Amino acid sequence: MKKYYLLIFLTGTIIFSLQAQQDLFNENSIVSPEINPDNSVTFRIKVPHAKAVSVNGNLDANNGFANITHEMKKGDDDIWTYTTQILPPELYRYHFIVDEVRTVDPSNAHAIRDVGNLSNVFLIEGGQANLYKVNDVPHGTVSFQWYYSPGNEKVRRLSIYTPAGYKDSNKEFPVLYLLHGIGGDEEAWLGSGRASQILDNLIAQGKAEPMIVVMTNGNVSQEAAPGKGSAGFVQPTFRLPNTMDGKFEETFVDIMNFVEENYRTIDKKEGRAIAGLSMGGFHTANISLYYPDTFDYIGLFSSALGVRPGSNSSSPVYQNTDEKLKRLKKNGYKLFWMGMGVDDMEMIYNGNKAFRDKLDNLGMEYEYHETEGGHTWNNWRDYLVIFTQKLFK
Amino acid sequence: MKKYYLLIFLTGTIIFSLQAQQDLFNENSIVSPEINPDNSVTFRIKVPHAKAVSVNGNLDANNGFANITHEMKKGDDDIWTYTTQILPPELYRYHFIVDEVRTVDPSNAHAIRDVGNLSNVFLIEGGQANLYKVNDVPHGTVSFQWYYSPGNEKVRRLSIYTPAGYKDSNKEFPVLYLLHGIGGDEEAWLGSGRASQILDNLIAQGKAEPMIVVMTNGNVSQEAAPGKGSAGFVQPTFRLPNTMDGKFEETFVDIMNFVEENYRTIDKKEGRAIAGLSMGGFHTANISLYYPDTFDYIGLFSSALGVRPGSNSSSPVYQNTDEKLKRLKKNGYKLFWMGMGVDDMEMIYNGNKAFRDKLDNLGMEYEYHETEGGHTWNNWRDYLVIFTQKLFK
Repeated sequence: MKKYYLLIFLTGTIIFSLQAQQDLFNENSIVSPEINPDNSVTFRIKVPHAKAVSVNGNLDANNGFANITHEMKKGDDDIWTYTTQILPPELYRYHFIVDEVRTVDPSNAHAIRDVGNLSNVFLIEGGQANLYKVNDVPHGTVSFQWYYSPGNEKVRRLSIYTPAGYKDSNKEFPVLYLLHGIGGDEEAWLGSGRASQILDNLIAQGKAEPMIVVMTNGNVSQEAAPGKGSAGFVQPTFRLPNTMDGKFEETFVDIMNFVEENYRTIDKKEGRAIAGLSMGGFHTANISLYYPDTFDYIGLFSSALGVRPGSNSSSPVYQNTDEKLKRLKKNGYKLFWMGMGVDDMEMIYNGNKAFRDKLDNLGMEYEYHETEGGHTWNNWRDYLVIFTQKLFK
Repeated sequence: MKKYYLLIFLTGTIIFSLQAQQDLFNENSIVSPEINPDNSVTFRIKVPHAKAVSVNGNLDANNGFANITHEMKKGDDDIWTYTTQILPPELYRYHFIVDEVRTVDPSNAHAIRDVGNLSNVFLIEGGQANLYKVNDVPHGTVSFQWYYSPGNEKVRRLSIYTPAGYKDSNKEFPVLYLLHGIGGDEEAWLGSGRASQILDNLIAQGKAEPMIVVMTNGNVSQEAAPGKGSAGFVQPTFRLPNTMDGKFEETFVDIMNFVEENYRTIDKKEGRAIAGLSMGGFHTANISLYYPDTFDYIGLFSSALGVRPGSNSSSPVYQNTDEKLKRLKKNGYKLFWMGMGVDDMEMIYNGNKAFRDKLDNLGMEYEYHETEGGHTWNNWRDYLVIFTQKLFK
């Protein structure tokens, strides 16, 4: 059995030797990533025998923060390194590839799971990226809540953000329902999406209204994120049944009921917003039409509108879209917002174009915001920053 | 730029190609870990060029779940494998070592950070290990809360578990304050400790009273766990100042005030318990003596009692221990519980022995529970299971 020993100097007089049966600490003198003074970033990993080591991440800052792989070079000390160009402020995600094996950076304990993969993260401060970090401002509370969904006949888990001041007041707060993409779950917007940091910071700056944010799990076959439900430590996958067959939308009322019964919410259309990314944008579009006169604010982020459910889906969610849009127009709404990256996949880009044409034909108002890059968390964080500042004012 | 494509078959008629600029999915057909029908476990990782690959984890089930390293063998397909003996039910932690590089298992998305390391986890069901998993029982809520600590002049983060039924009742609930060990933080008991699962299950079985569990951050130099505070994505370390100099204990009242002002708590001695592991046991011992007549239930788990602060610590927390113990005896308490692994490090084992002798000499009652193994999360989960069943009855 290998044992690690740690020396802790307590006020210089006592040495305490901790036998880490707990597997507490892997002594590691390598610094990685190192953010250099000019905001270039150096990655390091010690690998004696590999033939090739590379770093992959959303490091292509000149190309919409697309994923790019950079070969690393081995030094005399068996440490492979790569230093980036100067990187603009942003939250970055990366991993190493040692020969053909994907691995996290052993020198960086900070990793976020996105669907089935762990990626390390680091943040270059400045500009909008400062909204993605924890600052010395009042913080909201993040809770993982279970609710019973009668429509799915199971308990299900959601994440909920209550803003700073919520627990010290008797006020009612508006609610943003924030939906993840395919393969994601109720933890996605908190991890890669930085939703709680973005809301904390925008609210503290007076740029967003204090609001509750409900981050749902849109995979009705799941109780909860992989590892967080009774299915155990199952490997995450895209291949979940019933994610785009209408069931999530049909049973969304269960979530609204739970939230409005258990939180001090403004239970009116002007107190409700809904937004989602990719598949969550598809869900958002459907939900905002299926529940009439329910949401005043609708946000589609890189929404998977080019995708249609199978022809054998008879869910009422997918029927009579034009009539539902006309009803939405008649009932009125305050904001219909769409964000899209120019490099998004053609089906999604064109699907959104067709949807905008439809809104134009119906004489419906919307805001359309096109950005660089594609189907990326960089864009979705950016869209959340823009969208939340437009709500409940 | 490397692009991944994913084919999703929607009810057999539509194919949706997702361009994962999101870095969504690393197609990986390797199953690892595989829990075999006999509860042996097979680990697999594909590494073409390595000279040696091994798996390290708390896999030495015949030796108190101590860490052990097993060499893996390379097959013709470049996949290295190792199959364990039959493993008893337990939550297991492991990582791979590829040549000299520590890495997570690329086929297992479930990893828990313990201090500076990420380890993968898996669970063998059965027996007590079923308390460590999410079962189909009513679930409590886990929240990450920020509070202001006047004594530390900063906002600080804590984790709080409210039991199922809390939000649907007007009852007052008892509180267990649950403290982490050195290098840990407010997330440790939720991750490796499985506190929320253990409480959910014991409460559902009627074996533990519904209670609130407050998991604090005992490192007063930190606002929050690494990556969760304004210090950013700092690398976790043991070498934090002021963890054992009395400051945490002195300012513990700030935490109690916050909890009792913001939750429906039984604000009496019989409604308060405190327990901690290792350094948190040291904190627990000090706090239970420093705040007179405050806790009826005290739990020391592998408590770092053999450790003394430096002689220049003049904190009142460390003064007149014998007098404080006599006061505790006079005031009365319902439970003084100590858990200890026989293989714990000598200083800690002997420190606890000396402390028990002191209690004996003072004629103070306590329960002492000695287990196999040492300074391990296996023991601390076990102690939590035992301790919580004795509370508030």
